[in-house]
Amino acid sequence: MIIVMSHTASDKEVKAVVERVHEIGLKTELSLGEERTVIGVIGGNAYAYRDAFSHLGGIQEIIPITKPFKLASREFRANNTVVDVGGVKIGNDEVVMMAGPCSVEGEEMLLETARHVAAQGAKVLRGGAFKPRTSPYSFQGLGESALKMMATAREETGLKVVTEVVSPQDVELVARYADILQLGTRNMQNYALLQEAGRSGKPVLLKRGMSSTIEEWLLAAEYVLSQGNRDVILCERGIRTFETATRFTLDLNAVPLVRELSHLPIVVDPSQATGRWSLVRPMSLAAVAGGAHGLIVEVHPTPNQALSDGAQSLDFAAFDRLMSDLRRLLGAMAKQLA
Amino acid sequence: MIIVMSHTASDKEVKAVVERVHEIGLKTELSLGEERTVIGVIGGNAYAYRDAFSHLGGIQEIIPITKPFKLASREFRANNTVVDVGGVKIGNDEVVMMAGPCSVEGEEMLLETARHVAAQGAKVLRGGAFKPRTSPYSFQGLGESALKMMATAREETGLKVVTEVVSPQDVELVARYADILQLGTRNMQNYALLQEAGRSGKPVLLKRGMSSTIEEWLLAAEYVLSQGNRDVILCERGIRTFETATRFTLDLNAVPLVRELSHLPIVVDPSQATGRWSLVRPMSLAAVAGGAHGLIVEVHPTPNQALSDGAQSLDFAAFDRLMSDLRRLLGAMAKQLA
Amino acid sequence: MIIVMSHTASDKEVKAVVERVHEIGLKTELSLGEERTVIGVIGGNAYAYRDAFSHLGGIQEIIPITKPFKLASREFRANNTVVDVGGVKIGNDEVVMMAGPCSVEGEEMLLETARHVAAQGAKVLRGGAFKPRTSPYSFQGLGESALKMMATAREETGLKVVTEVVSPQDVELVARYADILQLGTRNMQNYALLQEAGRSGKPVLLKRGMSSTIEEWLLAAEYVLSQGNRDVILCERGIRTFETATRFTLDLNAVPLVRELSHLPIVVDPSQATGRWSLVRPMSLAAVAGGAHGLIVEVHPTPNQALSDGAQSLDFAAFDRLMSDLRRLLGAMAKQLA
Amino acid sequence: MIIVMSHTASDKEVKAVVERVHEIGLKTELSLGEERTVIGVIGGNAYAYRDAFSHLGGIQEIIPITKPFKLASREFRANNTVVDVGGVKIGNDEVVMMAGPCSVEGEEMLLETARHVAAQGAKVLRGGAFKPRTSPYSFQGLGESALKMMATAREETGLKVVTEVVSPQDVELVARYADILQLGTRNMQNYALLQEAGRSGKPVLLKRGMSSTIEEWLLAAEYVLSQGNRDVILCERGIRTFETATRFTLDLNAVPLVRELSHLPIVVDPSQATGRWSLVRPMSLAAVAGGAHGLIVEVHPTPNQALSDGAQSLDFAAFDRLMSDLRRLLGAMAKQLA
Repeated sequence: MIIVMSHTASDKEVKAVVERVHEIGLKTELSLGEERTVIGVIGGNAYAYRDAFSHLGGIQEIIPITKPFKLASREFRANNTVVDVGGVKIGNDEVVMMAGPCSVEGEEMLLETARHVAAQGAKVLRGGAFKPRTSPYSFQGLGESALKMMATAREETGLKVVTEVVSPQDVELVARYADILQLGTRNMQNYALLQEAGRSGKPVLLKRGMSSTIEEWLLAAEYVLSQGNRDVILCERGIRTFETATRFTLDLNAVPLVRELSHLPIVVDPSQATGRWSLVRPMSLAAVAGGAHGLIVEVHPTPNQALSDGAQSLDFAAFDRLMSDLRRLLGAMAKQLA
Repeated sequence: MIIVMSHTASDKEVKAVVERVHEIGLKTELSLGEERTVIGVIGGNAYAYRDAFSHLGGIQEIIPITKPFKLASREFRANNTVVDVGGVKIGNDEVVMMAGPCSVEGEEMLLETARHVAAQGAKVLRGGAFKPRTSPYSFQGLGESALKMMATAREETGLKVVTEVVSPQDVELVARYADILQLGTRNMQNYALLQEAGRSGKPVLLKRGMSSTIEEWLLAAEYVLSQGNRDVILCERGIRTFETATRFTLDLNAVPLVRELSHLPIVVDPSQATGRWSLVRPMSLAAVAGGAHGLIVEVHPTPNQALSDGAQSLDFAAFDRLMSDLRRLLGAMAKQLA
Repeated sequence: MIIVMSHTASDKEVKAVVERVHEIGLKTELSLGEERTVIGVIGGNAYAYRDAFSHLGGIQEIIPITKPFKLASREFRANNTVVDVGGVKIGNDEVVMMAGPCSVEGEEMLLETARHVAAQGAKVLRGGAFKPRTSPYSFQGLGESALKMMATAREETGLKVVTEVVSPQDVELVARYADILQLGTRNMQNYALLQEAGRSGKPVLLKRGMSSTIEEWLLAAEYVLSQGNRDVILCERGIRTFETATRFTLDLNAVPLVRELSHLPIVVDPSQATGRWSLVRPMSLAAVAGGAHGLIVEVHPTPNQALSDGAQSLDFAAFDRLMSDLRRLLGAMAKQLA
Repeated sequence: MIIVMSHTASDKEVKAVVERVHEIGLKTELSLGEERTVIGVIGGNAYAYRDAFSHLGGIQEIIPITKPFKLASREFRANNTVVDVGGVKIGNDEVVMMAGPCSVEGEEMLLETARHVAAQGAKVLRGGAFKPRTSPYSFQGLGESALKMMATAREETGLKVVTEVVSPQDVELVARYADILQLGTRNMQNYALLQEAGRSGKPVLLKRGMSSTIEEWLLAAEYVLSQGNRDVILCERGIRTFETATRFTLDLNAVPLVRELSHLPIVVDPSQATGRWSLVRPMSLAAVAGGAHGLIVEVHPTPNQALSDGAQSLDFAAFDRLMSDLRRLLGAMAKQLA
């Protein structure tokens, strides 16, 4: 941490800051610039003490110099983490397609979708059992019976299952059925839930909070990792900006940037992000060209009849076209579908 | 709900949309403009079915015409709701001051603060027992022992107690000690928690999500209200914008606007919003001049020693200056402190 | 335009609105819903009169139903516009690479860069002569002498020239040297400049304002188009969001969305957007995979010595790697480099 | 400027950075922390050279430690600047009301408005002659004839005149009629215009760019100040955020913060910011309670008939109520209307 003194700071003010640092048990290193004094504060976790200085006189700014996340950082682990979901590997040179309906609406539609996406090369089935909805008057999901349907679909198709959990009490229940626990954008900073998921023994798909910086996202991952669970998959799903033409702004910059900052795999959800099915194919291709390790896409046999988010769901024909374009793209990148 | 057809839509496409509306059981009203056809869809909850049209051809746009919140709306209830917290009324012409430390750090500091703010005219004591922190390595609060200290402070000073609850499992515990349950910005869309708080029988202070629109905020209130709990106090606490000079951007526009749209009381937290104690006094005065029913402010006996958020905490002298300015301001507005 | 009346609106209030519409010379169509009355206002430019109703009682909301841009819209022109810059076509299935230094710093570095990027397949040379800089103390560009250097580079290499113009007075001067006039993000709503560029007879590269919606961007294009200049190339260059890890947030959703809404070609600037050279290659590939008609990229022979924006400039080796990856990607998409 | 090396940086990489600093002619000071080396770079304008390091290996981050604005800073000038507009002082303890129509639509309506607001205590007449409009199809203002009407209104009422200038060529013309040149939000980074206004000899009202940070705003002021014009009045007018319920988000935090960072006066425009006349009174009071030196408010004799922005204009009765509330508020603050 660095404490920048104001150019009007007195010697007494500088001395008071230095003494406060020493009281806390950290070391200082003074740098007397032309215009102002800068105090380096040395010690692993120095920035955690920044509030201790906030009311002292003569300070202009306090600047951290260490990234606050550790276990998630590329510095902690130089090699990519590859999450193994019962044989499906996420984080290497094979791109993993996860697909399925926004909500599980019934067994028939789920099986029909699962069979179709599996035949086209998807490896993971997505589907909402517990739905966090902005309005209390919207459809909230089928709960455990949806989980059972997903387990049935897994048995029949061999697809792995990813589904969202929205409450710490439900973690154990959802973990009984799912292969990957999804933590949604509204719960990225639900720390009780993060920790419970960290203790579940299951891989976690951690969606980015719609107004979270990349740093906060990696700190949320840190909550899971620090419980001993190393199988975290990050998922970019759009951030909230002033632009209203798309539901959210898919921030694909996050893909290569997260790959620089962290060893964790990153996948992209273009359905939630754009809110428009016609943008899902081009943004999927863009995500993979930018380095994403996988995609999670909403597919519905009859989007017009969907109980939630039909506007952003692909029908089977549109999904097939995406898979075919994706295969061609991956070939050009010397990669392949998982 | 209104469905705007594209100017290139064929008669067949218009007919298909109309038929779909009728299938759902809603009525239509056609308006043939110069350039395009507009289909009015009549029925209380029509917009909930918008996805049913998302894949039909020839549609340009689907527009809701009813606000999605009901119980929270001014249309539902014309008169202001006044929440009665054991005799302290929030929502009328008296402005309520809530003050106290960010985190409860120990009994002594809490009592010292409680006595001071009570003597100056505060009516409610704030203080964190369970702290949601961005980093897993930051201080997370003292938990139940902090709740007990707050109850002790209540006994001694007569202040009511407001404190945050972060997990549905903890609602019953926190409700045993607190007079008002605070739901924080990171949990505004934690629906399991909202519903549990709605069933607690306690007034709820619902902070605005840092990236939530006013509409989403009122819909979150709707989750609490729809459980039968009518005692919801809204709290503006800053939204996330591109500006980094303040921690968040305190959106005071929300104060008069919420008062137009809703009957619920609204208070303002200038400490969390600005992140700088020197801005707390001017923004508190601004909030009250703009119509806020109360303030919630961080006060610490020695902000330099605070375990969290010292930079935004007022010391006693700064708090006293605020209270004195506030009294003068309220006098000019023909209002008074509660 | 649709005027939604409040559910408490009286018959008298509805009548007053209808009369006001007729006074203006527009027609009405009434729709009496279960909860409220909706008044359709018929007439091409009705929404321009919305302010005429803002102080009448009983109105809940006024909603436009026609997009405000015309000449830029896909409805106006179904086929893609292909801008012909002296034989280089922008807007068809060939992807055009524009490359060069952020600022023209001297003839030697410019020629060296031009030769290199031309040899690798670029078709247009970019380079700043007039630089809009946030601080008055930063390097502001070499002005006309830089324009002359660019003309020299064109002669030697055959590359077309794109450069920014920042003031209406300079349009004639810059148009004398440049093949494409660039209008920068800070000037997207500088209407005097837009109109002057519209009268210049030169193709215009219109960068998106960093806080402009896609609708405002297309309306800015409308300013140029309405002067009779049909050669507008849109350029996505990142929008301002809360995320500070990248300089701006490159909004690639804009690429397929603009292609739906408009017939104009769209190119992408990943250098300005990300502010980090290491992100330029992945985001360039993502942009093209998402459907961009071209790229505009900063290249510098020795980025460490650059007078502006060295951090986001590719050196020659990085540029070559990008071109090689791009060729492979385009092959997979059945496209090619222009 | 401080250069933070990565914890994996080699001695050779550290040495290369140090040598580069010396080549540029700046001095270094090394600090060897437990985890990483930090290099202090000493010299007034060091941060301007940050790009020189962007491609060197082993660097984690480059951090400025001096604010980039100088003439606008409180450090440069400790006392408040008071701008004297022909006897009307802006920047001291008297609050200045500026009021008038969005656009000048004719002499009669302008005079009627001017007489009314002057009688109520306004000191400056606002009114648009040149209007920057998002759409080329909207009313663009009456130009010079509007300027003449404003001069007539000044003669009759004694009000000073503030009006916007949108193009460098028009500065001389507008300066002939106006007492204060307004630079609008879309032109805050139109540097040609800023510099021309800086040379005009007239006070400048500089509106904040709708997506500009406070730092960028003060740097824009610096462009005017650095031309020798010290009479800059800052005007907060709302920033663009995700919230769409108000036209913009009025950022009142900027008022006390600008007063900390700068000596320049700051006024607030609640009409442009909120876009709703019903919010103008509460937000005006909030702005003044928060420390604003003045207000600029839209007033129209018949807002329903306004050619632009009627929805946000006060009618005379609403303006009178505002003035009366304002007087009471200022009394409580020991201030008064200018």
